[in-house]
Amino acid sequence: MIPFNKPYMTGKETEYIKEAVISGKISGDGVFTKKCNEFFEKELGFKKVLLTTSCTDALEMAAILIDLQPDDEVIMPSYTFVSTANAFVLRGAKLVFADSNADNPNLDADKIEALITPKTKAIVPVHYAGIACDMGKIMELAEKHNLYVIEDAAQAIDSFYVMPDGTKKPLGTIGHLAAFSFHETKNIISGEGGMLAINDERFVKRAEIIREKGTNRSSFFRGEVDKYGWVDVGSSFLPSDIIAAFLYAQLENMDAIQAQRRQIWQRYWDGLSPLVQQGKLRLPYLPDFATNNAHMFYIITKDLTERTALIAALKKENIHPVFHYLSLHTSPFYADKHDGRALPESDFYTDTLVRLPLYFELSEEQQTRVISEIVKFYN
Amino acid sequence: MIPFNKPYMTGKETEYIKEAVISGKISGDGVFTKKCNEFFEKELGFKKVLLTTSCTDALEMAAILIDLQPDDEVIMPSYTFVSTANAFVLRGAKLVFADSNADNPNLDADKIEALITPKTKAIVPVHYAGIACDMGKIMELAEKHNLYVIEDAAQAIDSFYVMPDGTKKPLGTIGHLAAFSFHETKNIISGEGGMLAINDERFVKRAEIIREKGTNRSSFFRGEVDKYGWVDVGSSFLPSDIIAAFLYAQLENMDAIQAQRRQIWQRYWDGLSPLVQQGKLRLPYLPDFATNNAHMFYIITKDLTERTALIAALKKENIHPVFHYLSLHTSPFYADKHDGRALPESDFYTDTLVRLPLYFELSEEQQTRVISEIVKFYN
Ligand SMILES: Cc1ncc(COP(=O)(O)O)c(/C=N/[C@@H]2[C@H](O)[C@@H](O)[C@@H](OP(=O)(O)OP(=O)(O)OC[C@H]3O[C@@H](n4cc(C)c(=O)[nH]c4=O)C[C@@H]3O)O[C@@H]2C)c1O
Ligand SMILES: Cc1ncc(COP(=O)(O)O)c(/C=N/[C@@H]2[C@H](O)[C@@H](O)[C@@H](OP(=O)(O)OP(=O)(O)OC[C@H]3O[C@@H](n4cc(C)c(=O)[nH]c4=O)C[C@@H]3O)O[C@@H]2C)c1O
Repeated sequence: MIPFNKPYMTGKETEYIKEAVISGKISGDGVFTKKCNEFFEKELGFKKVLLTTSCTDALEMAAILIDLQPDDEVIMPSYTFVSTANAFVLRGAKLVFADSNADNPNLDADKIEALITPKTKAIVPVHYAGIACDMGKIMELAEKHNLYVIEDAAQAIDSFYVMPDGTKKPLGTIGHLAAFSFHETKNIISGEGGMLAINDERFVKRAEIIREKGTNRSSFFRGEVDKYGWVDVGSSFLPSDIIAAFLYAQLENMDAIQAQRRQIWQRYWDGLSPLVQQGKLRLPYLPDFATNNAHMFYIITKDLTERTALIAALKKENIHPVFHYLSLHTSPFYADKHDGRALPESDFYTDTLVRLPLYFELSEEQQTRVISEIVKFYN
Repeated sequence: MIPFNKPYMTGKETEYIKEAVISGKISGDGVFTKKCNEFFEKELGFKKVLLTTSCTDALEMAAILIDLQPDDEVIMPSYTFVSTANAFVLRGAKLVFADSNADNPNLDADKIEALITPKTKAIVPVHYAGIACDMGKIMELAEKHNLYVIEDAAQAIDSFYVMPDGTKKPLGTIGHLAAFSFHETKNIISGEGGMLAINDERFVKRAEIIREKGTNRSSFFRGEVDKYGWVDVGSSFLPSDIIAAFLYAQLENMDAIQAQRRQIWQRYWDGLSPLVQQGKLRLPYLPDFATNNAHMFYIITKDLTERTALIAALKKENIHPVFHYLSLHTSPFYADKHDGRALPESDFYTDTLVRLPLYFELSEEQQTRVISEIVKFYN
């Protein structure tokens, strides 16, 4: 059986968890949380990060931080995970869905400006499959219209936006705020887990407070106040240090994990490209400004019927590919709140995109089997 | 050094975490989450429970479940942790604070009815130190005025409300909903962690949806629908199965943990009772309808000056007692939203309550030292 995903352990995870427990502190912000923060801030070039219990929670923190008021509008793709949307709906925002690009599922940056109104407060680009959205255009628009940009970087660890001059910026360091996921389906995992990256300094202090249940407890532990109190809204967004210990073992092995995932990705690309030449299917499209973090390998079929048949054919061979998002603008929850615009590209990916098995321990032999079954299906 | 708290490991925690990882599923709702659920439902008599990432998150789920509308009123004690309050504030509710009992910090059930208005939607009793609130009176009031009761049972695992006929009901099974904490300071821990108990069947289906990001994914995995979609608001409230694995090791050892804690509690009681007779201080008061889960041993000093002196004297001897909540109605965040009523009992506990070190590995010798230093302070 070849599953869609299999979480990979580097080997040190449980050892570090034991260390955390022996340290006498397994609630949030213990030794390993600090190590993870340092890794992101010193090794990966982030300004300030805060671990959270999920990417969903990091998005919720962002929605609180930008002080969203009921009826404020937030622009995001319709082709995304529900969490991107829920975080803002929970604060009373109205979602304004942008359509996807014709050549990849990211929101089409050229269609955003027409959606901006005096009520627009933020744009939420989702870097689908770890492939960068057009951040140049998006940041320009945000500046022009005085909007916040919150990157949904759930899938985007170790991926970059390439600037016109060739310099690379890590995804998640470009918008005012960004949210990452360490859910077990991601490249770097902790079961459930996430992180808020804060690129605009104005948010740092309040983010700490909101994450600590609306208290100035972090100041208290730095000795800045002699008791802590309730100073703002907030929640408990901080993960147990057990989760951070697991995550740290993964981060230490990020290069090895990424090298392996890239090799698997490339093999799919090489093995399936002939079908593209034959006009049978489409493979991921990376714009010039995007790099590849090998988070996902997807194929685009002709239509829903073909996709259903392909998934069924592979399942018969014990291979488990999966479709992905259902357009949010047609969801039972939001259809009657959506403004009625058709979003054909989003609907197209809803019907045609299939994700192939991609995980560290997927062997070359197994992968060859996946590729040859797809080739067989199309011939 | 005798710290206030030291998280206790039973020994099986990391073994179970390894098992979870080997099972191939460490995201939420894996094997160990199911084992924990079964433990609560089969061994402890809960109707339906859902693990969450914290008690805070369980409270937030409860606030969403009762469909709180902006300006709805929620009655709760002012002497509680900020999370009790935040969960409802995040949904736009107005908090109406009830004062504490004169004889213990729980909200005074006789003062609740005067606070009920047509806008009141819920009462949130907090079982402080695991000691039951007067649930008989509270449930009666709730029925009379058609209100929801959400128990903040953060500290109340393995504690009971004793009915007039002598039968015992576990705290957290009496209100419509209840929230538990497995934070490292609690009796049964997972670093960070929590649980929602659902006692009113009407909430079960929607709770599953809200916890799974507002989707019917749980139905999908039971094969009831052929794809899952966005059907409601929601968040990611489910903890990693790594956390559940840790928790399960604790639950299996609950009897031993509780026996040990009860012994420590009793030693404090016996050692400090002479000071009560001398009129020097007060110890925890348990009403007839409450049992003791040995979550916390607190003492009540005469006033703030005395408490400050006592904490300082003990710290000098390397013993670390801690004060607890600051009345929420005077907090920087809520003071100007509070209706101005004085809550003298709540303020009294804010100034006078001290929590003593109480953890599994606290030795008899160490405890004797704590007791004798307190006795020395008062003589
Ligand atoms: C009823 C209730 N409802 C909901 C939840 C949510 O549970 P989840 O966590 O699962 O979401 C809880 C959980 N609360 C616990 C503790 O009860 C809480 O006290 C604190 O524990 P800590 O170990 O962190 O230590 P501390 O107490 O914070 O003491 C440290 C120093 O701080 C000083 N202090 C303290 C306070 C409180 C305050 O306002 N101001 C203040 O200056 C006293 C010390 O010197 O935080 C925990 C999460 C709860 O009790
Ligand atoms: C941009 C973005 N932003 C934010 C976050 C939040 O991160 P946190 O989790 O850290 O908070 C995420 C995280 N999302 C991931 C995955 O991307 C997501 O796909 C899913 O992964 P799973 O392993 O659970 O499997 P699955 O995909 O749910 O597939 C299982 C079956 O379900 C069918 N399916 C699928 C969908 C989607 C749908 O609507 N309807 C539907 O019937 C396809 C299959 O057959 O859930 C994860 C949390 C994100 O991607």
